[in-house]
Amino acid sequence: MRDVAIIGIGQIPVGEHWDTSIRHLALGAAMNALQDANVAQVDAMYVGNMLSGHISGQEHLGAVVADFLGMAGVEALKVEAACASGAAALRVGLMAVASGMSDIVMVVGVEKMTDTSGQDTTAALAMAADAEYEISQGVSFVALNALLMRRYMHEYGWAREDFANFAVNAHANAVHNPHAMFPKAITAAAYNRAAIIADPVGLLDASPVCDGAAAVILAPLDVARSLSPAPVRVRASAIATDPIAMHDRPDPLALHAARLSSQRAYAAADIQAGDVDFFELHDAFTIMSALSLEAAGFAERGQGVRLALDGEIARDGRIPITTLGGLKARGHPVGATGIYQVVEAVLQLRGLAGAAQIPNARLGMTQNIGGSGATIITHILEAL
Amino acid sequence: MRDVAIIGIGQIPVGEHWDTSIRHLALGAAMNALQDANVAQVDAMYVGNMLSGHISGQEHLGAVVADFLGMAGVEALKVEAACASGAAALRVGLMAVASGMSDIVMVVGVEKMTDTSGQDTTAALAMAADAEYEISQGVSFVALNALLMRRYMHEYGWAREDFANFAVNAHANAVHNPHAMFPKAITAAAYNRAAIIADPVGLLDASPVCDGAAAVILAPLDVARSLSPAPVRVRASAIATDPIAMHDRPDPLALHAARLSSQRAYAAADIQAGDVDFFELHDAFTIMSALSLEAAGFAERGQGVRLALDGEIARDGRIPITTLGGLKARGHPVGATGIYQVVEAVLQLRGLAGAAQIPNARLGMTQNIGGSGATIITHILEAL
Repeated sequence: MRDVAIIGIGQIPVGEHWDTSIRHLALGAAMNALQDANVAQVDAMYVGNMLSGHISGQEHLGAVVADFLGMAGVEALKVEAACASGAAALRVGLMAVASGMSDIVMVVGVEKMTDTSGQDTTAALAMAADAEYEISQGVSFVALNALLMRRYMHEYGWAREDFANFAVNAHANAVHNPHAMFPKAITAAAYNRAAIIADPVGLLDASPVCDGAAAVILAPLDVARSLSPAPVRVRASAIATDPIAMHDRPDPLALHAARLSSQRAYAAADIQAGDVDFFELHDAFTIMSALSLEAAGFAERGQGVRLALDGEIARDGRIPITTLGGLKARGHPVGATGIYQVVEAVLQLRGLAGAAQIPNARLGMTQNIGGSGATIITHILEAL
Repeated sequence: MRDVAIIGIGQIPVGEHWDTSIRHLALGAAMNALQDANVAQVDAMYVGNMLSGHISGQEHLGAVVADFLGMAGVEALKVEAACASGAAALRVGLMAVASGMSDIVMVVGVEKMTDTSGQDTTAALAMAADAEYEISQGVSFVALNALLMRRYMHEYGWAREDFANFAVNAHANAVHNPHAMFPKAITAAAYNRAAIIADPVGLLDASPVCDGAAAVILAPLDVARSLSPAPVRVRASAIATDPIAMHDRPDPLALHAARLSSQRAYAAADIQAGDVDFFELHDAFTIMSALSLEAAGFAERGQGVRLALDGEIARDGRIPITTLGGLKARGHPVGATGIYQVVEAVLQLRGLAGAAQIPNARLGMTQNIGGSGATIITHILEAL
């Protein structure tokens, strides 16, 4: 199995791009990545996306993106794992290079969520959950997260207000990210008075509906140094699943797939959680930040919120998270998010994160979650 | 790169399974494949599917199928490339084993197309074409194939009736396939008097809307013999793309991606087209059979129809095709089709195709087409 490195990254600003179709979104990120890697052609491309069929009436997105990039002929496929589609596509790209079936591979994560009604977007996102046993009962995806948050508060005695710092920290970091949807700070007071969407989830607990695209270029590690001045090695890629319906998990707050996925990644990279310099976790909702920190081994059960309260998730804390805004403030264009996380981790590892830079970042971890936790994919990246 | 073999196959009958949800369809095929391979657990599974979001309101199908199989925890992803989703998932499965990232891998192709209106199914299938530049102009997917057929007849002087034997041959072979949707013979006269759907495409030129699922189990070649009494080696996997919109291809009748994909497969397997004992091609419409035979090197341009007229596509002909009914008569549950083709090829290579058996079949080729030809994936399989 060949080791793999990231030799190029690209992204477009996350936002409401009402005047931009999904293929144009992908094009922007892909062109930036090709330019960054200084390559004109790739052997294969894998497109991470969840909703192109539902929202844009377009499946077959691999061929669409390859064509629009002027690369028709090339291998191109779409990979889907709900909100973890981006990291899923990266995983397939890693397989392609690791196996020797391809050398230079592009992975694009792209999602277009505007150009439809809000009601329709809610229905679209619900397809990440169990259509037959959850959604058909009338629960929405936000409501599933509200159930998790409510249970967590009940089990461990936290109040809504205790989650505020996850959002405050994300927004504080997004200020330094020119690609963030909300590059502005918020206060705990603003969090506390935000409208409730699905009790206890408030507006500032939730990541926004938005459009975006991000891309990375992969190459075999042994040639990466000759192709890039600052290659980043993929030390580990790990994935795990859990029952699709939350009620089928013996202990939903355990986020079992995150635990499995993290442990597999640590084992593959031969490291401990404490060795990681920062953690781009999947803060689709503040409750997921708390659960992810616990499942990945950074806090005891029920104590993820404590890390936020104590400021340990900040740039100078014990485990910096959402260092360029996370899903909350950079934005969460679902199928693109996993690649945004990786692009931001590469910026940190290259030392190019500007005012958001984590000092001496050598080892970064990203974790992309599909549904309410049924698919969880972890990558560990290392500066060379 | 490790060589890969198929150690198990499974399928369910293709048909209108109104009382069966998509997860149940997948379960049936997967259980059959596990039993055939005599394994209880896999390291990863890849699900080929196009329409689960549109028709069943369910994305995140990898996790759904893993869960329903009682394998939650395992790696699971959905792969999509329109009607080539099945072969696309197989390709990802091959990468997983070839790279060493997984040892025992299941690939499931599944599609549920009933439980919706015919109009809605037409809209769903159109997502395989270019939503912005073809479908928004009002053309349907059948109509795109009608344009190809009309142009072919114009260029090369064939009549509608000359295509009859593609359908007649497929139905004759399906008689021997207990999993076929239409296991009954038809006559050329029936073809000629069939209703026209989109002139010149008639009802018996077209594959049916249906439900189905098929699965294969993969393992490294070097352990396959100890796991299976009749492993089949995957000699080549090759994919190519073409512009998504038919009007953007310089020569639509060339089926350029099929040519590229076939040539890449022959080169990887170190064989010529003539070495192949049978060819499971993608006869979604009779015109695609003619174009595929030409692009894959079995006929000169414009002469694919001649092979049908001369009976060379029959079991005892020069290049037997659709040996167990093909898309036309076995049925075309789109995301499952690529795996049905492979399952049938394995049956031929094991010598277990019954009355449909190709004598002394050692080398088989399958080709799965996405859209009107924008993604084409070829596999070459060898009896060991």
